[in-house]
Amino acid sequence: MELWYTEKQTINHGITTKVVNCLHHEQTEFQTIDLLETLEFGRMLVLDGMVMMTEADEFVYHEMIAHVPLSAHKNPNNVLVIGGGDGGVVREILRHGEKIQRVDLVEVDKRVIDLSKKYFPEVTSGLSDHRVNIHVQDGAQYIANTKIKYDVIIVDSTEPVGAATPLFQLDFYRAVFNALSPTGIMVAQTDTPWFKPNLVRKLYGTISSLFPISRLYTAAIPTYPSGLWSFTLGSKQYDPLYFEALPELKTKYYCMEVHRAAFNLPAFVQKLIKKKDELNE
Amino acid sequence: MELWYTEKQTINHGITTKVVNCLHHEQTEFQTIDLLETLEFGRMLVLDGMVMMTEADEFVYHEMIAHVPLSAHKNPNNVLVIGGGDGGVVREILRHGEKIQRVDLVEVDKRVIDLSKKYFPEVTSGLSDHRVNIHVQDGAQYIANTKIKYDVIIVDSTEPVGAATPLFQLDFYRAVFNALSPTGIMVAQTDTPWFKPNLVRKLYGTISSLFPISRLYTAAIPTYPSGLWSFTLGSKQYDPLYFEALPELKTKYYCMEVHRAAFNLPAFVQKLIKKKDELNE
Repeated sequence: MELWYTEKQTINHGITTKVVNCLHHEQTEFQTIDLLETLEFGRMLVLDGMVMMTEADEFVYHEMIAHVPLSAHKNPNNVLVIGGGDGGVVREILRHGEKIQRVDLVEVDKRVIDLSKKYFPEVTSGLSDHRVNIHVQDGAQYIANTKIKYDVIIVDSTEPVGAATPLFQLDFYRAVFNALSPTGIMVAQTDTPWFKPNLVRKLYGTISSLFPISRLYTAAIPTYPSGLWSFTLGSKQYDPLYFEALPELKTKYYCMEVHRAAFNLPAFVQKLIKKKDELNE
Repeated sequence: MELWYTEKQTINHGITTKVVNCLHHEQTEFQTIDLLETLEFGRMLVLDGMVMMTEADEFVYHEMIAHVPLSAHKNPNNVLVIGGGDGGVVREILRHGEKIQRVDLVEVDKRVIDLSKKYFPEVTSGLSDHRVNIHVQDGAQYIANTKIKYDVIIVDSTEPVGAATPLFQLDFYRAVFNALSPTGIMVAQTDTPWFKPNLVRKLYGTISSLFPISRLYTAAIPTYPSGLWSFTLGSKQYDPLYFEALPELKTKYYCMEVHRAAFNLPAFVQKLIKKKDELNE
């Protein structure tokens, strides 16, 4: 028997990948969780039928969502991660060493954390660090009520369906703004400009309406729809285009050249996020 | 009935895309040609079971393989395209206007040209330009015998199987070097660093052994394996990192920022093309 995992990334297109073994299947209070052993990408975490991460390419997403804001902020002492129960973002945050004093991780589904610890021990290695506090709680609720001011907030959400829907609303980003220090920076994953141009435009519009500095950047992730993923960064003071050289971070995708290049968008993506009155058509 | 085209991009992974209609199927002397009408990407050209181009994303590949070398060369009068029977590269070359005096297109399979003209009239629009000469001939043979010195040579080949195999050999690139003017630049598509790291390394090694300046760059192409594609450029004099601002090219992917950014490689790709004696491991 040959087993293939096929994911419809849009209603008309998807990926298909050979599976050695189904390691785990579970319906939690919030979503379905599947863990697969694949031949091409190693272990794969699938939430509600969408690939969240694989052993082979998780480094791209996790490095790019963490190191861009952290390198842009001169002193990221307090960092908040919304979502990210797989631990990958926390692992990357901790590479910034002594600067990092506190990391709060707010994941709504405890089972994502438990299963990631079991099946992705390397990815979750940072979760046991003494500076990391894990809150099993709804991200939107946490952000609305926290009294802490964060230097960096990273929104590592799933797609805007089910439990993550509030994380794509204006109210949520307003609360994120309020939970940031006066020099704070936030970043969110904002899907692919190829298959979800309207979502990219909407999220960029929302974030740019709140923050004095907003910038979209991209990374190439093979197992995500279209392979080209976008992130939107909102900043109160620091422009992420100007940043200090950091000591070697031991990364596999991120580096200073990539940090700069990631903001240089393809022409059709630039056009996508321009305000209507800037378009000459 | 639902019809899906599934392409194994590696033995263990692929894409699957919904098909409205199979427009054409043919076995030529050189390869199988399929033309599909898909819902996600519009019309799709498939050679030997590999997507060559689709209406929706062909602009990325064609713009990036053409405008990078043409913008780097101050005066690209004579341009040669090896392969590229679909006409997309020629269309992009002609956007450079009066600078372009002569374009030679050498395509081994006349049926690719004929069928592209029929099913992709916009892509093939440049083939009827009076400066364009079409040679239905083997690319390696043409390059070994031509007396013309070209300013830019673009190797728009299929994969290194079947008819295109010679286009991935040292002898071929040596002949390309000899067919270039003293300021000549060549570029070749060199596959994906995700699934074909050894091929990328080998081709980069070959080209960099011949040319004083060699550079790898990438572009994000949804329908190509992994979504991240590489191109290797070899140059006798001009460094593609330094180039003059061009007038507006009416492109959808390429722009000056993208030209610069495309050479800023992810850390794992940088490592891939480093010479062994430069690696500290």
